[in-house]
Amino acid sequence: MRLRHKPWASDELKKRDHIVIQNPKEMAGNWKQTFGDYDEIHVEVGTGKGKFLAGMGELHPNILYIGVEKYQSVLYTAMERVEEAGLNNVKLLSQDVADLADFFAPGEVNRFYINFTDPWPKSRHEKRRLTYKSFLALYENLLVKQGEIHFKTDNQGLFEYSLHSFSLYGMILNQVSLNLHESGIEGNVMTEYEEKFSKKQMRIYRCEAKFRN
Amino acid sequence: MRLRHKPWASDELKKRDHIVIQNPKEMAGNWKQTFGDYDEIHVEVGTGKGKFLAGMGELHPNILYIGVEKYQSVLYTAMERVEEAGLNNVKLLSQDVADLADFFAPGEVNRFYINFTDPWPKSRHEKRRLTYKSFLALYENLLVKQGEIHFKTDNQGLFEYSLHSFSLYGMILNQVSLNLHESGIEGNVMTEYEEKFSKKQMRIYRCEAKFRN
Ligand SMILES: C[S@@+](CC[C@H](N)C(=O)[O-])C[C@H]1O[C@@H](n2cnc3c(N)ncnc32)[C@H](O)[C@@H]1O
Ligand SMILES: C[S@@+](CC[C@H](N)C(=O)[O-])C[C@H]1O[C@@H](n2cnc3c(N)ncnc32)[C@H](O)[C@@H]1O
Repeated sequence: MRLRHKPWASDELKKRDHIVIQNPKEMAGNWKQTFGDYDEIHVEVGTGKGKFLAGMGELHPNILYIGVEKYQSVLYTAMERVEEAGLNNVKLLSQDVADLADFFAPGEVNRFYINFTDPWPKSRHEKRRLTYKSFLALYENLLVKQGEIHFKTDNQGLFEYSLHSFSLYGMILNQVSLNLHESGIEGNVMTEYEEKFSKKQMRIYRCEAKFRN
Repeated sequence: MRLRHKPWASDELKKRDHIVIQNPKEMAGNWKQTFGDYDEIHVEVGTGKGKFLAGMGELHPNILYIGVEKYQSVLYTAMERVEEAGLNNVKLLSQDVADLADFFAPGEVNRFYINFTDPWPKSRHEKRRLTYKSFLALYENLLVKQGEIHFKTDNQGLFEYSLHSFSLYGMILNQVSLNLHESGIEGNVMTEYEEKFSKKQMRIYRCEAKFRN
């Protein structure tokens, strides 16, 4: 993701504390009590500019969506999008995914979305991939029993790796699609990257991976 | 696979009983004792015209290859190929894969190959797919501990289904390739169908699926 320097982003994000949650550690275990009695909580890791989350939030008002993004300059665009659409059920965290266990209680999350995450193609960077086993353990701990990760990417190597990683972790793969936009899927909400890559006729890969326990 | 009617095929196959094994039930548990002390036994299910097995047999003289094919008219071509190449380490069974447990003892097989097997796209035919769970149970029983299935196909739907089926069975996916011929793989031996489809620029999908026990 290209980062334009936005020195003022940090202050602006703080002003929108009804969207960009400023005290996320205090939220662990309290998301529903604080924001209303939603049916489910879905978390997107590496939200970027928030196109997917805003789209999902509009389609599913009964679900509380929380996006986690570490770069403030990118999150700023996501915040604007949520604000302009007047969405109460979309919240953002200006945080690193690695710290997720500080912001949610075990079993509090109903689903994780991972969309077009950085592929880190070199094997020595395997641990940084958001589908590496240490991240899977993190998600599993915060998810309900037999919770799911919904994963999309344009990156063939990352998808191949992630199928390996999910299966090694004992996860069940459902709804595998090796060419999402040719599969006649309904209700797909495109992310920023997805729109960009599918315009170039690149294949989009998708699967749902379910924890066994 | 198009079947030309070859009424004489049956007799011809019987005459080559050093290649096309006529008493396979008596072979269960006795393959290595009968044919020589090979390092491993690899079985291909749905061998077709035997291009893959003959190629592998030439490359790996220390491995005993056994191909299972239910149509005699197709197996006839495989037999000719093995005969002409003078391969002692390639044997053929004119049998249905469903009966495999009659021909091998538990733990006797080191690896299964499934290449370009019939996709049976309709859900009501799921049980016929050679990667359906009942076939996986059959393979697991005949394989060594933590044995592997090596799987190739051009069929996107069958590959998507098989990833699901393997993972549901608890298998570990290794060496996943979503575009085999662009992946720089070495030592790949093409099957008849693989050659045909890759000439048409179609993607070939491949993975290795390993049983946990
Ligand atoms: C390639 S972009 C994709 C953005 C968006 N999901 C999409 O599909 O358009 C990946 C995003 O993930 C963010 N990201 C990567 N690793 C992260 C981490 N450990 N914690 C938080 N955000 C992360 C990056 O900053 C970047 O904005
Ligand atoms: C599509 S062809 C592929 C042949 C070859 N493996 C290749 O890649 O060129 C599938 C073959 O599997 C055989 N086959 C399918 N189901 C079988 C079964 N249950 N038992 C034995 N052979 C089977 C068919 O007769 C056919 O020859």
